[in-house]
Amino acid sequence: MAVFMDVHHGMAGITADQLAAAHQADLAIEAEEQVHFKQAWADPDSGTVYCLSEAPSMEAVQRIHERAGHRADEIHPVPLTA
Amino acid sequence: MAVFMDVHHGMAGITADQLAAAHQADLAIEAEEQVHFKQAWADPDSGTVYCLSEAPSMEAVQRIHERAGHRADEIHPVPLTA
Repeated sequence: MAVFMDVHHGMAGITADQLAAAHQADLAIEAEEQVHFKQAWADPDSGTVYCLSEAPSMEAVQRIHERAGHRADEIHPVPLTA
Repeated sequence: MAVFMDVHHGMAGITADQLAAAHQADLAIEAEEQVHFKQAWADPDSGTVYCLSEAPSMEAVQRIHERAGHRADEIHPVPLTA
């Protein structure tokens, strides 16, 4: 399993309820791809959302996000943590 | 206290030791600005580093990063989490 940080742009005005619903939509199907979305953070002003996940591949992360209705604009493997 | 995600670009080739040293440099002085850097993630291929912090302001986050020798390219308040 690898760790990924993905980024969504254009989410200006996102609310706490909308973020929670989007995250829940990921969680509901993530096991089908052996993905786990650990946490998400949103900046409603700039419209940026960051998602931290563990997954077998970048493609698996994107497949879950796409099926949940919110394709990521960037996905970065983040093999290093501190 | 607010939560911030900051991003550093141009860090291609960063190693685990370099990330740990940079994070440690932040931790060594962060209390002077009531900042706490909770975690950092790096993608050596794209040269992207993400730092999650709690701080009184975006400016306080940047002051610690600057004094530690690595100014952030972007800092986003992330008031929403899921």
